[in-house]
Amino acid sequence: MQKLRMGMIGGGPDAFIGAVHRIAARIDGLIELTAGCFSSNADKSKQMGSQLGLAASRCYATYQEMLTAEAALPGNERIHFVSIVTPNHVHFEPAKMAMEYGFHVVLDKPLCFSLQEAYELKNIIHKTQTVFCLTHTYTGYPMVKQAKQMVADGAFGRIRKVYVEYPQGWLSTALEQTEQKQASWRTDPTKSGKAGAMGDIGTHAFNLAEYVSGEQVTSICAQVNAVVPNRALDDDGAALLTFTNGVTGVLMATQIAAGEENNVKIRVYGEKGGLEWQQQDANTLQVKWLDAPAQIYRTGGGYNHAISNYNVRVPSGHPEGYLEAFANHYKNFSTVLLAKLQNDAAPAEAYDFPGIQEGVRGMQFIETIIKSGTSQEKWTKFVEE
Amino acid sequence: MQKLRMGMIGGGPDAFIGAVHRIAARIDGLIELTAGCFSSNADKSKQMGSQLGLAASRCYATYQEMLTAEAALPGNERIHFVSIVTPNHVHFEPAKMAMEYGFHVVLDKPLCFSLQEAYELKNIIHKTQTVFCLTHTYTGYPMVKQAKQMVADGAFGRIRKVYVEYPQGWLSTALEQTEQKQASWRTDPTKSGKAGAMGDIGTHAFNLAEYVSGEQVTSICAQVNAVVPNRALDDDGAALLTFTNGVTGVLMATQIAAGEENNVKIRVYGEKGGLEWQQQDANTLQVKWLDAPAQIYRTGGGYNHAISNYNVRVPSGHPEGYLEAFANHYKNFSTVLLAKLQNDAAPAEAYDFPGIQEGVRGMQFIETIIKSGTSQEKWTKFVEE
Amino acid sequence: MQKLRMGMIGGGPDAFIGAVHRIAARIDGLIELTAGCFSSNADKSKQMGSQLGLAASRCYATYQEMLTAEAALPGNERIHFVSIVTPNHVHFEPAKMAMEYGFHVVLDKPLCFSLQEAYELKNIIHKTQTVFCLTHTYTGYPMVKQAKQMVADGAFGRIRKVYVEYPQGWLSTALEQTEQKQASWRTDPTKSGKAGAMGDIGTHAFNLAEYVSGEQVTSICAQVNAVVPNRALDDDGAALLTFTNGVTGVLMATQIAAGEENNVKIRVYGEKGGLEWQQQDANTLQVKWLDAPAQIYRTGGGYNHAISNYNVRVPSGHPEGYLEAFANHYKNFSTVLLAKLQNDAAPAEAYDFPGIQEGVRGMQFIETIIKSGTSQEKWTKFVEE
Amino acid sequence: MQKLRMGMIGGGPDAFIGAVHRIAARIDGLIELTAGCFSSNADKSKQMGSQLGLAASRCYATYQEMLTAEAALPGNERIHFVSIVTPNHVHFEPAKMAMEYGFHVVLDKPLCFSLQEAYELKNIIHKTQTVFCLTHTYTGYPMVKQAKQMVADGAFGRIRKVYVEYPQGWLSTALEQTEQKQASWRTDPTKSGKAGAMGDIGTHAFNLAEYVSGEQVTSICAQVNAVVPNRALDDDGAALLTFTNGVTGVLMATQIAAGEENNVKIRVYGEKGGLEWQQQDANTLQVKWLDAPAQIYRTGGGYNHAISNYNVRVPSGHPEGYLEAFANHYKNFSTVLLAKLQNDAAPAEAYDFPGIQEGVRGMQFIETIIKSGTSQEKWTKFVEE
Repeated sequence: MQKLRMGMIGGGPDAFIGAVHRIAARIDGLIELTAGCFSSNADKSKQMGSQLGLAASRCYATYQEMLTAEAALPGNERIHFVSIVTPNHVHFEPAKMAMEYGFHVVLDKPLCFSLQEAYELKNIIHKTQTVFCLTHTYTGYPMVKQAKQMVADGAFGRIRKVYVEYPQGWLSTALEQTEQKQASWRTDPTKSGKAGAMGDIGTHAFNLAEYVSGEQVTSICAQVNAVVPNRALDDDGAALLTFTNGVTGVLMATQIAAGEENNVKIRVYGEKGGLEWQQQDANTLQVKWLDAPAQIYRTGGGYNHAISNYNVRVPSGHPEGYLEAFANHYKNFSTVLLAKLQNDAAPAEAYDFPGIQEGVRGMQFIETIIKSGTSQEKWTKFVEE
Repeated sequence: MQKLRMGMIGGGPDAFIGAVHRIAARIDGLIELTAGCFSSNADKSKQMGSQLGLAASRCYATYQEMLTAEAALPGNERIHFVSIVTPNHVHFEPAKMAMEYGFHVVLDKPLCFSLQEAYELKNIIHKTQTVFCLTHTYTGYPMVKQAKQMVADGAFGRIRKVYVEYPQGWLSTALEQTEQKQASWRTDPTKSGKAGAMGDIGTHAFNLAEYVSGEQVTSICAQVNAVVPNRALDDDGAALLTFTNGVTGVLMATQIAAGEENNVKIRVYGEKGGLEWQQQDANTLQVKWLDAPAQIYRTGGGYNHAISNYNVRVPSGHPEGYLEAFANHYKNFSTVLLAKLQNDAAPAEAYDFPGIQEGVRGMQFIETIIKSGTSQEKWTKFVEE
Repeated sequence: MQKLRMGMIGGGPDAFIGAVHRIAARIDGLIELTAGCFSSNADKSKQMGSQLGLAASRCYATYQEMLTAEAALPGNERIHFVSIVTPNHVHFEPAKMAMEYGFHVVLDKPLCFSLQEAYELKNIIHKTQTVFCLTHTYTGYPMVKQAKQMVADGAFGRIRKVYVEYPQGWLSTALEQTEQKQASWRTDPTKSGKAGAMGDIGTHAFNLAEYVSGEQVTSICAQVNAVVPNRALDDDGAALLTFTNGVTGVLMATQIAAGEENNVKIRVYGEKGGLEWQQQDANTLQVKWLDAPAQIYRTGGGYNHAISNYNVRVPSGHPEGYLEAFANHYKNFSTVLLAKLQNDAAPAEAYDFPGIQEGVRGMQFIETIIKSGTSQEKWTKFVEE
Repeated sequence: MQKLRMGMIGGGPDAFIGAVHRIAARIDGLIELTAGCFSSNADKSKQMGSQLGLAASRCYATYQEMLTAEAALPGNERIHFVSIVTPNHVHFEPAKMAMEYGFHVVLDKPLCFSLQEAYELKNIIHKTQTVFCLTHTYTGYPMVKQAKQMVADGAFGRIRKVYVEYPQGWLSTALEQTEQKQASWRTDPTKSGKAGAMGDIGTHAFNLAEYVSGEQVTSICAQVNAVVPNRALDDDGAALLTFTNGVTGVLMATQIAAGEENNVKIRVYGEKGGLEWQQQDANTLQVKWLDAPAQIYRTGGGYNHAISNYNVRVPSGHPEGYLEAFANHYKNFSTVLLAKLQNDAAPAEAYDFPGIQEGVRGMQFIETIIKSGTSQEKWTKFVEE
């Protein structure tokens, strides 16, 4: 089997998410990290590449250099796709250039820096027929896929209510005033964009809500706060939501819930029952019924939908975690890309990974929730193209 | 030790909460059910009284009859207080009359039918010096008291965020169109008042939030829904909240979360950590810290505050439940009343039970959230006297 | 409705279980504490009685005095039954005398001090036709009754394995060398009998295992330890078990698991599935299936067996606890006794409370496990009459 | 950085554990699968290798062929180590030959087929100075390492009690009579050896108990059963244990607990407190105290021991699972091997992976527990060399 060759943009020594992407890309043996531009500092980039076992010739000083050089390589050597893991303000340009040079793209969320960029990217993807994956991790979990399918199959009747939340505590203090690089760019409007927490984790919660419920948010009524003194961007927020088909909901996302880790959680209720999933117990899906005992669905259970078990690697009860959920996006992206390269179709299950549509809606969510946060109007219509 | 004599208004054969009040009143052996008017049907009332072991002469056909007759009895025979467990529209009149006839009062929540009644009751209580308890059950739990004390002691630094929720599923269908008496009056505006779910369980969530956080809600931005077709009152709602001292929060209360029971839950976060309590695991208080392992406080633990352990009956690990939480209000009310009757002071811990202030704020909450629910304005100022 | 009149033996100011019995007897309003001999110290006994609201004439200095005096009272005044809540060495004599004087009996576990006493009590009960209840609390929980019924109905096919455990930590230090009265008699062979932990909590675990599985232990292979230096009786033990019908199992009971409270737990597995119940989450019964999602049965669920819901007081989700489980034994005992007094039959559900058979098996368990603990033989046949 | 080249023996298309080993070896980018003999069927082996992206020349028909051919390759091409993932009866010969040909070895548990083989392997390892890793997965979990360290540091005082259990349900039916390959060899004494469940999962439980407690089992009193009719090997068992330093314990391992997955769990108690870890909530370590609230240690918490966090890849709250635990053994093995190849020392943390000592003790455990299972003697002394 042919392995896909990946070039990475970003993910240098101080990064957190770059290493996650590399592991996720490695797990299933479908991808080989072949090239990279890991830092805006050329030496650091080379050093990182060497540490990762790359040939020196494939460690580049800038992404422009990498894309140009790789495009010039013979087809059986050059990378197939790039993985972009830089801060938000360095998403659009490298993604655009990569696509225009004929490379497929995996991009860390949120999609980009501004809504304008989002629309432009969408057009480029359309024009270039790029295979594109945006790494909203949580929809990669098998039990989240199971949840989506049960809702879609009508197991709960018409959906009525959605609660989604993402509580973190790590920005409870002014960490950005220390040397902490993660905190630093995430709280800087020139790097993050309009939103802090709403962009960083609010988009995850939003994406999860739309994915599982199968409904789309139509308006938002939000309270968005910068709780820690002197913080330039929001670190906390909550919103009332309306969705298509009369569904209503609540979204909560905060980075100042001191003592919380990353326990993103979703609950969806329909006429006959509901479901609950949370990352802290990621291999469990609680399914609740109006008139019967609740059920505990577990990763890998023989009773799960095919698409859920398609994303599982080990037998029931051996927990899979965050890296495997992340890896599922890489695996599905790779499967689709490999099929495309062979003018073939991938298994239907493989097409279920977040792409440009999810990316655009995420940017629209940021636009809408920040607008609502400062608006005196109760409901802000969800911004659409 | 003298037992307090109680007369009950309401709590007939089809009622649910009447039986709960009777058990709660019995548990600690401080109170004897001596008289009652259990139903608007005189025969039913007598029958219920007889079943409860009351003397026939103390089973009354109406509360007016009971209060008049009891007031005429010698001091060592007549009841000391009444417990009113009727639907909301029959709270005010019997409470008023009882107080004016010199009886102390325990009243089921919410306080009454309208805000006007609430203010009037407050005045009567003040004038008559009645000892008054409003049974907001959840603040009777030892671990909720522990939570309040830890917040009050500053364990978490300045409070920043409050999340409170009360998800139920029992009104997911139009139960009121069957013979179900509980559903029937709760969804009837002539009996419940302005609010359905917001009055029935929203007030519990609100009360819990103010009790634990020590802060008061100052404005509300709510979405209030009647989800089940043809329902006259709300069965679902959510609200963004602002509190005193810059705290913000979210309140969710619903009766259409199919499959949910009564898992009321509160989370409060401050600068240094936070806490989480939920009724489904009522004997546990999760305490979370920014830089240290979370802690599991348990009912009856030697490390708890005195006021928490004052409300415990059995050793750690033998779970106490809803009836004991309820009973704690009766016990504390009784302890304070007994002391007052002896011109004495009760232990400081005993004064911690919900009273008229909580009742008035609950009615103001109903007024405000229903107003906000229909308002186009984003924020509705919390209605105050 | 007539209330049953109860006389209590034991349960003075330093006792723990006496207060539990009084609350349990009170909760359902079927029983009135009418007489008592609460302490071997006459003054303390009177004082306790007065504090509990008893007439001075019904507070006795000795149980002999109480039984004699009460038996001489007219039928409509004298007590119907006694509740004996003394340490083990003062179970047999008062129970025997009570029965011989025509009183029914509730007795705290374990049944008595020695196996010889147990057999004798059994005979007396048989002769006197006494209604007798031994308060093995845990089988009073609604979800334990649900568990038993599901096993009995064959839901899991033939039963294969039973795990039962009762970990406590409160005797991790030599508490008996302080003034702690509970520790003091429980570690004293002249008061407890042959066994310490095995008698105190091992019997609970054993009783729970036989009750839920519907099988009887046939042999035991035990390790029994006195872990804390200078302790005269066992404070820790574990045993391999064989049951009737080829079932095997493990029993663990310890009082030196530092940090544990009272989380008694049982698991039973059959051919098709299994179940798990633990006191710490007493309102939940986990039901597991070989080929289907596990289910969460909850106290009061409409899907439960009638006998389970017969023992519930409040709606699903309002947790009931230890006191209610305890009270279920009193309620069922009382219902059966009241029916007998009226030459009537009680509802079938009410007959499900532990009695002399469970008491005798408990004493045989103590005999067998202590014997096995010191034996060099692998398997010790379960001691039977 | 140089990658280690790995050759795999076993792990063909029907295998389960081979794929796990490959993922675990891949995750950290330290190892490259370079050669393999995946099946005793030469075609299948080639096909598997090709699917895994191996050069055809490195896909071998037999392990003998592979070891001979690889040993003949130049040092910068030939594999550094083999990973042996065959059934138990094909552990010893390939491991022996690999070592004698100069390759280092990762081997799936249990060590081998018989105790005799175990001792021989130990000698060969000693003679050849092989770096050797036996993949007892569960000690690779960061919170298990944290547990061990807390015990070793004396956090709980002297240890007193160990409970370890491994309940599975997958062999509840005669799965070996279907085509299920996993069930088939595991229940076949010619492939598994003396033990079924005791070798497959009992050894895991045993290893975990010795690892965390820091004590060694000194004698065993076991009941070992073949519950499913016509099964040749044990599928269920339990044992009382004595350890060094007066510690006692209980081990339970079963494959007929219908409905259970792989929830291996350990509890250890000392004088001052105890701990509890279970795979189903693998990122949590419960720490319990005699006189203080229990604590919840979480994977990656800043408060953890260095050796625990050394084995973590992502921030707290993003769950790591079974594959990461497995990968930790590969990572640590590789780190030590790389250092050795460079005549260097690895970080102290890296030396913590299971090796020949654990392997020998595991085989001794099998020997002892099976012996005890059929013995009439109560205690069977732990078999030692």
